[in-house]
Amino acid sequence: MKAFKMTDAVRGFTFGDPVPTETVILEKQYREDTLPFSVEVAEGKGRFSLPLTKEDRVYGLGPNLGGINKRGRCYESYCTDDPLHHEDKTTLYGAHNFFVLEDADVATGFFIDFPGRIRYDVGFTAMETITVEISGEDFDLYLIEGGSIKEIVRSFHEIIGKSYMPPKWGLGYFQSRWGYKTEEEVQEVYETFKSQDIPLDGIYLDLDYMEDFKDFSLSKERFPNFKKLTQELKEEGVRLIPIIDAGVKVEEGYNIYEEGIQGDHFVKDAEGKPYVAAVWPGKVHFPDFLKKDTRTWFGDQYKMLTDLGIDGVWNDMNEPAIFYDETALQEGVDAAMAAKGENLGVNAFFSLRDKFMNIGNKEEYYRRFFHTIEGKTYTNEAVHNLYGYNMTVSASEGLKKHLQKRHVLISRASAIGMHRYSGLWTGDNSSWWSHLSLNLRMMPALNMSGFYYVGADTGGFGGQVSGELLTRWLQLSVFTPLLRNHSALGTRVQEPYAFHEPLVSYNRAQIKRRYMLLPYLYSEMLKVHEKGGLMFSPLAFEFFGQEAQEAEDQMLLGEELMMAPVVEANKKGRYVYLPESMALVDFDMEEVTLTKESAGVTYMTYDLKDLKFFLRRNRLLPYTLPVGNVSKEDLTTLRVLGYVDTEASYTLYDDDGESYGYEEGKRFETHLQVRRLEDGELTIDVQSTHPKIQTVIFTLMDDSGDIRIKEVQIGL
Amino acid sequence: MKAFKMTDAVRGFTFGDPVPTETVILEKQYREDTLPFSVEVAEGKGRFSLPLTKEDRVYGLGPNLGGINKRGRCYESYCTDDPLHHEDKTTLYGAHNFFVLEDADVATGFFIDFPGRIRYDVGFTAMETITVEISGEDFDLYLIEGGSIKEIVRSFHEIIGKSYMPPKWGLGYFQSRWGYKTEEEVQEVYETFKSQDIPLDGIYLDLDYMEDFKDFSLSKERFPNFKKLTQELKEEGVRLIPIIDAGVKVEEGYNIYEEGIQGDHFVKDAEGKPYVAAVWPGKVHFPDFLKKDTRTWFGDQYKMLTDLGIDGVWNDMNEPAIFYDETALQEGVDAAMAAKGENLGVNAFFSLRDKFMNIGNKEEYYRRFFHTIEGKTYTNEAVHNLYGYNMTVSASEGLKKHLQKRHVLISRASAIGMHRYSGLWTGDNSSWWSHLSLNLRMMPALNMSGFYYVGADTGGFGGQVSGELLTRWLQLSVFTPLLRNHSALGTRVQEPYAFHEPLVSYNRAQIKRRYMLLPYLYSEMLKVHEKGGLMFSPLAFEFFGQEAQEAEDQMLLGEELMMAPVVEANKKGRYVYLPESMALVDFDMEEVTLTKESAGVTYMTYDLKDLKFFLRRNRLLPYTLPVGNVSKEDLTTLRVLGYVDTEASYTLYDDDGESYGYEEGKRFETHLQVRRLEDGELTIDVQSTHPKIQTVIFTLMDDSGDIRIKEVQIGL
Repeated sequence: MKAFKMTDAVRGFTFGDPVPTETVILEKQYREDTLPFSVEVAEGKGRFSLPLTKEDRVYGLGPNLGGINKRGRCYESYCTDDPLHHEDKTTLYGAHNFFVLEDADVATGFFIDFPGRIRYDVGFTAMETITVEISGEDFDLYLIEGGSIKEIVRSFHEIIGKSYMPPKWGLGYFQSRWGYKTEEEVQEVYETFKSQDIPLDGIYLDLDYMEDFKDFSLSKERFPNFKKLTQELKEEGVRLIPIIDAGVKVEEGYNIYEEGIQGDHFVKDAEGKPYVAAVWPGKVHFPDFLKKDTRTWFGDQYKMLTDLGIDGVWNDMNEPAIFYDETALQEGVDAAMAAKGENLGVNAFFSLRDKFMNIGNKEEYYRRFFHTIEGKTYTNEAVHNLYGYNMTVSASEGLKKHLQKRHVLISRASAIGMHRYSGLWTGDNSSWWSHLSLNLRMMPALNMSGFYYVGADTGGFGGQVSGELLTRWLQLSVFTPLLRNHSALGTRVQEPYAFHEPLVSYNRAQIKRRYMLLPYLYSEMLKVHEKGGLMFSPLAFEFFGQEAQEAEDQMLLGEELMMAPVVEANKKGRYVYLPESMALVDFDMEEVTLTKESAGVTYMTYDLKDLKFFLRRNRLLPYTLPVGNVSKEDLTTLRVLGYVDTEASYTLYDDDGESYGYEEGKRFETHLQVRRLEDGELTIDVQSTHPKIQTVIFTLMDDSGDIRIKEVQIGL
Repeated sequence: MKAFKMTDAVRGFTFGDPVPTETVILEKQYREDTLPFSVEVAEGKGRFSLPLTKEDRVYGLGPNLGGINKRGRCYESYCTDDPLHHEDKTTLYGAHNFFVLEDADVATGFFIDFPGRIRYDVGFTAMETITVEISGEDFDLYLIEGGSIKEIVRSFHEIIGKSYMPPKWGLGYFQSRWGYKTEEEVQEVYETFKSQDIPLDGIYLDLDYMEDFKDFSLSKERFPNFKKLTQELKEEGVRLIPIIDAGVKVEEGYNIYEEGIQGDHFVKDAEGKPYVAAVWPGKVHFPDFLKKDTRTWFGDQYKMLTDLGIDGVWNDMNEPAIFYDETALQEGVDAAMAAKGENLGVNAFFSLRDKFMNIGNKEEYYRRFFHTIEGKTYTNEAVHNLYGYNMTVSASEGLKKHLQKRHVLISRASAIGMHRYSGLWTGDNSSWWSHLSLNLRMMPALNMSGFYYVGADTGGFGGQVSGELLTRWLQLSVFTPLLRNHSALGTRVQEPYAFHEPLVSYNRAQIKRRYMLLPYLYSEMLKVHEKGGLMFSPLAFEFFGQEAQEAEDQMLLGEELMMAPVVEANKKGRYVYLPESMALVDFDMEEVTLTKESAGVTYMTYDLKDLKFFLRRNRLLPYTLPVGNVSKEDLTTLRVLGYVDTEASYTLYDDDGESYGYEEGKRFETHLQVRRLEDGELTIDVQSTHPKIQTVIFTLMDDSGDIRIKEVQIGL
């Protein structure tokens, strides 16, 4: 073990000879140091345990099931395509090895830089112990110390680098469905949004647009005028965002396959031949994204899409998902043949059935293909979590090179480090109420891992959605930077207009409210990109007490807001815990209202038609009027809600929304400040470098709940 | 359609020529009447829709997923063995076709007497419509009208007859696990309970005790001294409760198989040969429980168990579950053979995989075997929900005949009507927090169907339990009449002693509290047996207002108590809604305390060590001190908690606990009455026919929270 220092807050310990993951961007400064607990490294595993008192809480671990507080469960870091996220599951699509343990006095961050499987037993086997088991002897263990959880998160973000920043249009509303089979259908979706007056910034295309599920192909039959459609919609401010899968179809004459073979770009099996797995196209090879020249080669393929006018892509199936491989299928077939005519005992039957039932994503597949890193060969299993990450690096570099402006990029598989290259969606969730609340609970853990451009499939991907669930989900998702309604083939259609009135009106209103909140959300995105830290924080990160610690269905957004969505069926309201007095903001169908609410627990009515949330005391919230999409944004008049007892200020960040200028700090800042003098009079100060904002209208509530409206002309 | 009257509150409408289900015990009096809505009967289906206003709530449908309020979901009545109860599922093990629709003014009960599949769309497809689709043209539709939901439930219970009443020992604590493989293991479980001082009334035996999964067989190797074990444990007050499955192993020389063939007791396929399905023993035949002489024949087999000293049985796999049948397995094998060497496209692969993955309980199986009722032949599908019901009638009649005293009998499959013959457990749930809250939510719906001796597998059957989840689950299950901790082979052991301290102490305390509450629970069981109605009621059945209507995690028990269990992980407490002031009862480790709580919502701390619930105003709760099991019950001193502002009374029912004397009203009544005079003085009156109770100790709280203790000697 070698010890190192990285920053004042971050020190680390190197065990063995870790695989370089490029997750951490700063240099290690080796020095003498002692780990404050023991790590056992033996027999191919690293392992440590830490005590948990009754009061301790554990946060982080990225896109996982369980609560905001991760105690009481087991988790695994091993990117996995499993579409049924019920309570037994221990791993989803991401592998995020950062967590914070907070006891009554002190918070400590832990990051394990290791690309294989890690198991976490967070007070499950024994309530008073957290055990981490790393499936290898070579890893870096980082400790992040000093200050609050928020400070620890910021210290962690310093060592992993700045996050991906989407273009502003990426914060619009997106419609998606596996099953928009033709150009006509896509056109019809667009037309319906338009005729129904529902804002729309883009339509995601699932596998349907491809020819035989081949990456970088277009169905000639179903999408004969893809470029025309793309460009016509873009003129209306609506983007098409096609999917790209990890597996490349094995097919003679298919250019990507041929180039991949010629360039030696595919991962190999034990005999040195390209590994054959089966996914959507049937048999595929996987590009070896862990090789730089393969990343460059594959990344350049995205030019085919950008040449058609595409500005955004989603990378899927990149855990990588494997439906079966030839060995496993052969075993199944052999077992079935042996069973022919036999009177099977129950164990023999289960054994046969399970050969098919469990044929997807078998552990052994990932030991059957290999990667070479700095001359060393690894099974995919050993470096598994780098795969989707590096497919996304590849896409990011290709899109950046060929677009010369910002793009939208999200990935299903993820690991920390990838946050510099893309956002993510939380994968194939279901139309379950429990997944609506899970969506909320995942947000801070994703932010902790550096991912801000995140969201769940609104309405749920699998299963049948009810109109009530979709509208409730929109009431949450209008706050998540990635706002996409996506669903699976064969499920009930769930476009916002696919329900009976009054739900369509409610859905329209919810989506319009998203565009009203967009200046604030985009500003917050620019800020967290710049400074790191959290966009979504649990109440426990900010307030003391049991009720704040246990609030699993409320969330702080920025420094300004508290969300309290309804996440259960058949409710006309819910209990809300207010750690301090706040303003209840109601984006009603007709108007925006502010109402004073005192600290404590209260039953809040919350209809499907409303959007309700809370504005904290001495805080300002800028917003605007809704538009049809981001291209039509009109900031001439900015509106500001305020709950001001003494003094409140907010600095609105904005930029051109598409260039990389923000990387050099090129942005527009609008400083808003409100002071309440002792005599109750208000002084308002607005300083802005924004080229568009001319008028700012303030709606300001005081501690007694009284409202005053003030209008300020910029430069006057 | 023919209309009939049954009681003042119940009228009905006969469509076609319904299968006699024997669910309803009263006579139809045919007369002229008009249905207040239209029922469409055509093309082999019956169908009706009713409007739902925003305010309407729907209750009932027995053991189903979803909320107490069933809106927003689809359900099916079709007994199904599906062990993964996630949110997509629409049907579980029971088929209970009774529901109540309540709008702001009036409640109406609906019962559909039909033994095949019924689909309910309760405001799912359209929020404002409930649609019921009956998969046949022959059925009775009952309307129950007049009064509150509680009165409607009682009116329904009048027409379906009195419920099964277990012996008193059936209300003890039971340990179970699929995987107690030998007598030694069972003995060890008993010994551990004893040495750990944890009360125990019995141990359930899963398939492990059988020889080759054969009904009414004993493993000679693993249970060589079954009778001795049974009898020795019974002397200690601990019963063994073995499982019986529906399928009879096809095996030459096996007496049940041979008798079944000779007596023509098995269901037939289309060719008139006994239908072959495969379940645990491999190939089986199913007894035709819809035939009276088959019920008698099979029921008599239970004598083999009662002769060994067995007083209770659980009937399993009686939906009936089918792992596969020969036709389906052959199709799978053929598909696999055809796939050999082929480069399968993705659809061909899924088709092959699904042949095995979906091979269990295929719909077509239930069209491949037949029943004859009153000379008419039906597919099993058409009369499906009568199967498990009548297996249980068979067991009930056999046990009654051969025991001459009450027995414990629970069934997995269920339908209304079966409530007269047994209780039920809610099937193969999982160690999920959502299933803990589901357990609570199911209770009133089961009571509405006439089932009182009900409970879930405490701790969860499938999946891995945490110590926290088990203890929290016990905090709920100590209130459910059936209290059984059961888990599946291969899952984490979950006996109350299988965890780290202090959890074992907490679990011991929880189970002891069950025995403290037992006089009250048994009294309430006798009362609902006698009078029908609800033991567990949603707050909405008793109190007005949105908060009461939406309370999905609180429950009234009897007229006295309100439960508010913690059903989420990592909580030290929860919000409780009190519709009126109540006494918080804390069964602490050391003592029982009462605290006044005012109406409204309040955060209640609730540790794992406590048992907390609420006693309503002007109500009394009798309890006693804990014992090792029901055989050791000591009622010499009865204790009573009271929250008495003006006057409160309770009549404690009891009996000998094992005879059928209760059927003729033979019972002991203890009338407890407390009056608070204007000067604050208390008058207490106790009248008892109970042969054992000598002393009653009252702990009485007044409206100011002051406590007084009074002791009353009976007859003095």
